[in-house]
Amino acid sequence: MSNKHSEIHNYSVPGFLASAVSAGLKKTGDLDLSLIFSQKRAVAAGVFTTNKVKAAPILLSQERIQKGFLRAVIANAGYANACTGTQGLHDAIQTADMASKELGIAPEETVVASTGVIGAYLPCNLIIKALPNLVKNLSPYGFSSVAKALMTTDAFPKMSFFEGRADGHPFHLLGIAKGAGMIMPNMATMLSFLLTDINIDSQTLWPLFRSAVESTFNRITVDGDTSTNDMVLIIANGVAGNKTLPLVDRKEFEKGLTDVMGELAYMIAKDGEGATKAVIIEVNSAASKEDAHTAARVVGNSNLVKTTIFGQDPNWGRIMAALGRAGITMEENKVQIWINGIKLVDSGLMISEEEEKKAADKMKGKKITITINLNQGEWKDRITTCDLTYDYVRINAGYRT
Amino acid sequence: MSNKHSEIHNYSVPGFLASAVSAGLKKTGDLDLSLIFSQKRAVAAGVFTTNKVKAAPILLSQERIQKGFLRAVIANAGYANACTGTQGLHDAIQTADMASKELGIAPEETVVASTGVIGAYLPCNLIIKALPNLVKNLSPYGFSSVAKALMTTDAFPKMSFFEGRADGHPFHLLGIAKGAGMIMPNMATMLSFLLTDINIDSQTLWPLFRSAVESTFNRITVDGDTSTNDMVLIIANGVAGNKTLPLVDRKEFEKGLTDVMGELAYMIAKDGEGATKAVIIEVNSAASKEDAHTAARVVGNSNLVKTTIFGQDPNWGRIMAALGRAGITMEENKVQIWINGIKLVDSGLMISEEEEKKAADKMKGKKITITINLNQGEWKDRITTCDLTYDYVRINAGYRT
Repeated sequence: MSNKHSEIHNYSVPGFLASAVSAGLKKTGDLDLSLIFSQKRAVAAGVFTTNKVKAAPILLSQERIQKGFLRAVIANAGYANACTGTQGLHDAIQTADMASKELGIAPEETVVASTGVIGAYLPCNLIIKALPNLVKNLSPYGFSSVAKALMTTDAFPKMSFFEGRADGHPFHLLGIAKGAGMIMPNMATMLSFLLTDINIDSQTLWPLFRSAVESTFNRITVDGDTSTNDMVLIIANGVAGNKTLPLVDRKEFEKGLTDVMGELAYMIAKDGEGATKAVIIEVNSAASKEDAHTAARVVGNSNLVKTTIFGQDPNWGRIMAALGRAGITMEENKVQIWINGIKLVDSGLMISEEEEKKAADKMKGKKITITINLNQGEWKDRITTCDLTYDYVRINAGYRT
Repeated sequence: MSNKHSEIHNYSVPGFLASAVSAGLKKTGDLDLSLIFSQKRAVAAGVFTTNKVKAAPILLSQERIQKGFLRAVIANAGYANACTGTQGLHDAIQTADMASKELGIAPEETVVASTGVIGAYLPCNLIIKALPNLVKNLSPYGFSSVAKALMTTDAFPKMSFFEGRADGHPFHLLGIAKGAGMIMPNMATMLSFLLTDINIDSQTLWPLFRSAVESTFNRITVDGDTSTNDMVLIIANGVAGNKTLPLVDRKEFEKGLTDVMGELAYMIAKDGEGATKAVIIEVNSAASKEDAHTAARVVGNSNLVKTTIFGQDPNWGRIMAALGRAGITMEENKVQIWINGIKLVDSGLMISEEEEKKAADKMKGKKITITINLNQGEWKDRITTCDLTYDYVRINAGYRT
């Protein structure tokens, strides 16, 4: 994919500015407060956590994005502003309002994203104090600073970029993400912001965006937990000047969305807390769409499967047992299983110890693909996850203080 | 409970004999093959794994117990005889048949239980060779050897004993179990055998037994995985001579069942692979029975909750987040949470950092109780689990060979 770039880089998207500062929210003194700003009013859409316990920034942003337009996103690390009641909502609104005022835009044009400790109140005074500098530093090349400011337990900042053409006009799509572990509720969250200059209307954008989220961010898992703060936003400012209604080269834009979000999702799974290997679970020939998805998710979330991958042991019995408890249509004697292309199981039975040895050898690599044929029907799905390691326990058992 | 004893002890139950030998199935040379025998034909009932991938001994024993009578159980460690197809079924039948022949009873009066590596074929020749000694060694005091022979990753053998009176007659109930981790499919299984001399008919036994399993063994979890080999059997030989139909002192027998199975279940959770703490999740005032159960199970299976307990950190945000994704009726601002009696959350909000410090101090103990009030209705449930530790990863990442 020559038109996609993933190194940390001074990407820019016409009409967007960004900046990040250290507001004192992270104890380390690292960048912790960031701002993304569209120079003109932009079409926007968002997907938010399905957790019933929703952080204040989720409640606020979910409401504001209903109108389909946005100009600014202010994001902080260090504090999730979750389980903080009405005080938390007040703090989220105040953050957005003060940022809007400093930017000279309408309050409802700004949304807020937060990530950090649950239950502690947001230190609004620190954020308000930092706002003037944050706005002053806005630059077309501020996005890599944003990627860094979003990090909490992340081992590396996450960006992906796509350039395409729509209606003869070049357009750009920049994706920034934060996440290591589908979630970790005390340093919560998977956040992603997608910025594009393509000219597109809300009605066209929503289904394309939703579908790309479904096949990318909704196909990764680290521990099966779901954060109170997860949020994916897309903002399209139309600066590219292509004709919309109908959107010409829609396929090109769809590819951009899937490529960029797919790459960010893979980075998040690979950066799963303590992970040593990225793991792809492919399920084929399931009886239904739901079965394919459930099978991939149950195998991908099984602690026993995830520890056996860490141990580089092709212990397919654990995969069989996970399939057996997944509540899907399956017959043991029809199952086939491959690990990194080595066929280990046919008709539900072990092929040979030699093949297991070959698979064990392949499992020394950093990327493990488990392929499962259920031989029940026509449906397939895949999910990306990681192994379960000593470091997952270390990171998550660590005291908050 | 003065009439319950749990030390490893030479318990006996009138009319039952037991023995164990080393048949060479465990590489260590430890006891690995055991036999339980009722001197007279006995009423029996069983509960088996719900996993769709069922080991051969499950398929055979589930069928044989349909008749409601049994006389012998032969159990092996080292080999699960799961994912072994028709050969596996043949091996299970042959084991049972040869044991029956050696005991001089009808083939259908013997069932088989296996635990060990999945996918490998049972070395029947080793079992058959050991049978004469196994039968010769049968003794009223052989049950502690059986408890040892069942062990795989277990840190300790598990027995519990109850003495009661029914219709003026003393009766005994001995429970033996194996399990460390609700399961670990390559050293599979939770097995438990309950032996009693009470005189009881099948129709009376089944609902009492089923209900006790539901409130004990079905209320523990280590990693949410379910074995291909799980089995709980009860055998009642009637030697106590009490009147049945109706069963007098039914409550006493119910108490015995719940006490013995409850204690065995607690031992299994406490012996969870790598566990340092036993953890009880109590959910109160849920909107429905299902909600209470689901909430307890989702919190109890959350890796994030289990690692925070290992870390002795009262990180209630992870409990809130787990409740929020459990798919139950809940309102954040109604939730109350206690850890070991210290109230941490009221109306969905943190009480104070001081209370958190008190809770952290209490979490240094070996038994952690998390109490959750949902304030939605009248239903409650509880589940016993353990923490997630480095050793869980070590044990489960270990090579099979």
